Amino acid sequence: MDALSDAPSPERLQAILDGIAAEMALVTDRGKVASYIPELARQSTAPFGIAVALPGGQVVRAGDSATGFSIQSISKVFTLAIALGRLGDQLWSRVGREPSGHAFNSILQLEQENGIPRNPLINAGAIAVTDAILAGHQPREVLGELLRFIRLAAEDDDIHINRAVAASEQATAHRNIALAEFMAAHGNLRNPVALTIGTYVHQCAVEMTCAQLARAGLFLVGAPGCPRLVSPARIRRINALMMMCGHYDGSGEFAYRVGLPGKSGVGGGILAIAPGRAAVATWSPGLNARGNSALGTLAMELLVRETGWSVFG
Amino acid sequence: MDALSDAPSPERLQAILDGIAAEMALVTDRGKVASYIPELARQSTAPFGIAVALPGGQVVRAGDSATGFSIQSISKVFTLAIALGRLGDQLWSRVGREPSGHAFNSILQLEQENGIPRNPLINAGAIAVTDAILAGHQPREVLGELLRFIRLAAEDDDIHINRAVAASEQATAHRNIALAEFMAAHGNLRNPVALTIGTYVHQCAVEMTCAQLARAGLFLVGAPGCPRLVSPARIRRINALMMMCGHYDGSGEFAYRVGLPGKSGVGGGILAIAPGRAAVATWSPGLNARGNSALGTLAMELLVRETGWSVFG
Amino acid sequence: MDALSDAPSPERLQAILDGIAAEMALVTDRGKVASYIPELARQSTAPFGIAVALPGGQVVRAGDSATGFSIQSISKVFTLAIALGRLGDQLWSRVGREPSGHAFNSILQLEQENGIPRNPLINAGAIAVTDAILAGHQPREVLGELLRFIRLAAEDDDIHINRAVAASEQATAHRNIALAEFMAAHGNLRNPVALTIGTYVHQCAVEMTCAQLARAGLFLVGAPGCPRLVSPARIRRINALMMMCGHYDGSGEFAYRVGLPGKSGVGGGILAIAPGRAAVATWSPGLNARGNSALGTLAMELLVRETGWSVFG
Amino acid sequence: MDALSDAPSPERLQAILDGIAAEMALVTDRGKVASYIPELARQSTAPFGIAVALPGGQVVRAGDSATGFSIQSISKVFTLAIALGRLGDQLWSRVGREPSGHAFNSILQLEQENGIPRNPLINAGAIAVTDAILAGHQPREVLGELLRFIRLAAEDDDIHINRAVAASEQATAHRNIALAEFMAAHGNLRNPVALTIGTYVHQCAVEMTCAQLARAGLFLVGAPGCPRLVSPARIRRINALMMMCGHYDGSGEFAYRVGLPGKSGVGGGILAIAPGRAAVATWSPGLNARGNSALGTLAMELLVRETGWSVFG
Repeated sequence: MDALSDAPSPERLQAILDGIAAEMALVTDRGKVASYIPELARQSTAPFGIAVALPGGQVVRAGDSATGFSIQSISKVFTLAIALGRLGDQLWSRVGREPSGHAFNSILQLEQENGIPRNPLINAGAIAVTDAILAGHQPREVLGELLRFIRLAAEDDDIHINRAVAASEQATAHRNIALAEFMAAHGNLRNPVALTIGTYVHQCAVEMTCAQLARAGLFLVGAPGCPRLVSPARIRRINALMMMCGHYDGSGEFAYRVGLPGKSGVGGGILAIAPGRAAVATWSPGLNARGNSALGTLAMELLVRETGWSVFG
Repeated sequence: MDALSDAPSPERLQAILDGIAAEMALVTDRGKVASYIPELARQSTAPFGIAVALPGGQVVRAGDSATGFSIQSISKVFTLAIALGRLGDQLWSRVGREPSGHAFNSILQLEQENGIPRNPLINAGAIAVTDAILAGHQPREVLGELLRFIRLAAEDDDIHINRAVAASEQATAHRNIALAEFMAAHGNLRNPVALTIGTYVHQCAVEMTCAQLARAGLFLVGAPGCPRLVSPARIRRINALMMMCGHYDGSGEFAYRVGLPGKSGVGGGILAIAPGRAAVATWSPGLNARGNSALGTLAMELLVRETGWSVFG
Repeated sequence: MDALSDAPSPERLQAILDGIAAEMALVTDRGKVASYIPELARQSTAPFGIAVALPGGQVVRAGDSATGFSIQSISKVFTLAIALGRLGDQLWSRVGREPSGHAFNSILQLEQENGIPRNPLINAGAIAVTDAILAGHQPREVLGELLRFIRLAAEDDDIHINRAVAASEQATAHRNIALAEFMAAHGNLRNPVALTIGTYVHQCAVEMTCAQLARAGLFLVGAPGCPRLVSPARIRRINALMMMCGHYDGSGEFAYRVGLPGKSGVGGGILAIAPGRAAVATWSPGLNARGNSALGTLAMELLVRETGWSVFG
Repeated sequence: MDALSDAPSPERLQAILDGIAAEMALVTDRGKVASYIPELARQSTAPFGIAVALPGGQVVRAGDSATGFSIQSISKVFTLAIALGRLGDQLWSRVGREPSGHAFNSILQLEQENGIPRNPLINAGAIAVTDAILAGHQPREVLGELLRFIRLAAEDDDIHINRAVAASEQATAHRNIALAEFMAAHGNLRNPVALTIGTYVHQCAVEMTCAQLARAGLFLVGAPGCPRLVSPARIRRINALMMMCGHYDGSGEFAYRVGLPGKSGVGGGILAIAPGRAAVATWSPGLNARGNSALGTLAMELLVRETGWSVFG
């Protein structure tokens, strides 16, 4: 798809983002930070940042858009892109493509569905994806490839893994290990659990700013001037998966209120894609009941209302 | 959104549809007709029809596009539009907006979630919606309003309810009655079960051709030249619900392969919306494992590949 | 099995029951009456009655043992005995013999297990049993047979159905109708739902006193001097089912604390069997969290502690 | 309870056991050996052994009653007895007392019930029990205590752990590790998962013959001449738990057909208790669909039919 002609000018966009940041500063119900990862539990709910990356690479931004945060589950989008590049449709023998209807870390469906996770954007599915790209490699090789992919997408070499966050997650990874062991019991894990989970927690700990994350999302916008890292057909499929499954059991709500494919992370980040137009990143650590950034969701809703970027009309 | 400039010409579209119809005629794995409604069980899997309605009302079509079929669950889209018009956001106290992750007629989540169905496009949710618009009215009044809405949308007065199909569904409605009684037990039904279910089975029995159905879908396209029956904001929301929940536990698959908001019916019909561009209807009675038309899904996939109409890029 | 030699004398038993009744009068946490059946919701939690029927027919009793109450789900034991007499092992094609692990009125397992209820002592299972004995008969014939069976077992013709309770249950039977319709959808109901449910609510409304109920339970004690209404092998099986499933998802607790096969009813009654020794009935309308009489369970526990009647040693 | 007077003589019992062993030799449908533990998967379904231990310690036996086998989940009974001795009712803060209604290794209820297993006789529950008695001890201390308890109960010092079986289970323990990690995530595990699971797989690998196992079960018979290792009240409670939960989702079937508290192991063993009378052990490696020894269940049923030992009358 070509860059669409009705896009707001960068100046107009700047005004919109400034307005949103100002409005966000006034919101009193800012959600709750994730409590189960000590490094995240220490965060404040005060920060809010937003950035929009346009085809060509220009970034418009407001608020705390230059503060780094761990992207957490947003990393699932990048590992999915890498896995599809490596394995193609063979990936779908190990993970499904349907919304789960359950919480992000649920093990229930794994039991009822023979260890095949519903989709690659819930924890169990992302662990299976990580396991798939690990095959025959060392964790540091896979993490290296992930960083190269993200840096290339963002055209920014200053993107790293936050070791303290990774260590903190590793220490409280019981539930993710349970998911991995359960898949191992069903033959849906090929590497030692410790290796796969070790890789998984490190990819969750990739640290970026809103500005970096928005730029890194441009490869899914698919317009001229965007990095061409995956084929147009694959862009559509990844966006479809983000729309259907990117916000766990709050995906329907995000589609209804925002109308863009997006992926949230428990660190408070959200990456959303306006196909053909822009990539948007928000960050605010307070989460709503479904584990998605409260202010981020609200900001996305306001942005789409102002820009008309909903894919639904 | 304006009608998009990169739309294929009607001539090009005709060639595409002819090609699809020809290809569909050769498919050997045509799915299975719904077995639990006697009138539907008698159908053949041979027919295939497709129609595309463009803003302004022009309809391009191929195959068995002039044969009537009962729209079944596609009616849920029209009753949802009516209910939102009548009740606005109050409707959401009685039904959710999330994909269910379960089969179209599942009762499991109703039990776990206090009689509130996950969304208005599964059976339980649609029964709640029908119950909501029944309040204080007779079934024939509600059915009259539904027919008026559809006829207005399609600009076609020759759209009726197939009484034989309605009677056949009524006779085998045990599972839908169970859903209704269960909601009644939770206080989420306001009319006598017999009245609500009687209305529900009749709305499922509305009979249309592909050509009529495509035109009736134009009100969700939201471009100049389309009937303006609901507001642009509501169009976006209905389309979002169709994307997330329109194909039951096959919604993720439809989003992945087709990339358009759509709603299927067990009669073999599918209605899909390309926002700003067109409304598409297909019909072929053979269903896949999730209860969605096998050939219809395939045809939609081919159409989007040729036209580039996916909302995902 | 012969009447066991270590039974307490009637005088000793009277002293035990008097002590229990006195202790129950002092209990402050008396549970909550069932709220969903209007006639039951009007009850007080003040009454407590207990009666022990010994082989030969002697009844020892204390407290409100001469007040009538609707036996509710305790009737499931009598209809099970009748159904096994009529159908023998064929009954097990329609209902299982395992504890459900879920609440008494759960519909969840019905969906996952093709409309076959887990056991005959939860609502769905009892509805299937009632449907099985209805076949080819009128409700009043079946209810007549049930009353004859109970009167014969209790050697007391003054046992009737409380029509007001039956009417009250009929008016709020949504959930039971849902269970029946769901089974009908799976082909596990042979009569019209209204007929089966109409019979079911009337059998629940059989009214008895503790003294009558204890005597009516003697046919399951299986000692000389007990009515011989079913074979010894069948007595063992019915007692096994009562032990495993008689208190819904509180069956394990009753086995752990009391150690006798028993069946509770939402009207506040419990019938327990000490094989070879006695039948015990208690009544107190306040229910615990699992829907079983709070004081009744406690009284049974005290009685078994004093008498050593636990089947577990 | 005193030893009951109607017990068959040892000579009569020997004739009964010989008859059962002869009948078992002719059974063609012998079940399937457990496939998921390599050391067990190698077993034949040919062997069948049975032994009855009487108060006083006399053992009557037939068939392969002197062949050792790993007792597997039957060990859960012994660790439960130890845990109740150590912790008393505090144990119940970590595990419930209700039948699960699900398979022996299900993780589903753990998720819905905050990491508290339903009962101590399914895998999750037994892992919690092992974790509870580990607290502050080394695995070898706990395993030493377990062996001492069993040897004392059986009055036989020649009972050991089969290291090859333990190693085989450790290598395929993914599902049990998943259960443990899941409980750890809910704060219901106090020791490192590797320590608890390491202990757990070793206790499952205790090897005994039918004769040894029957004698080891005498402490639950509670008659004069039986080892007095736990109080009479505790005996009743352990027996109640075995009755309700000892055969996983086949517990109802065992109660219905056999009528004794019992516990099965995936190695093909079953231990059943006839309170006041005898302890019975059978062994045959072929399992039925619920994971319980096929011939063992059948043999128990025949034994109870001949002896009248059912607790249900």
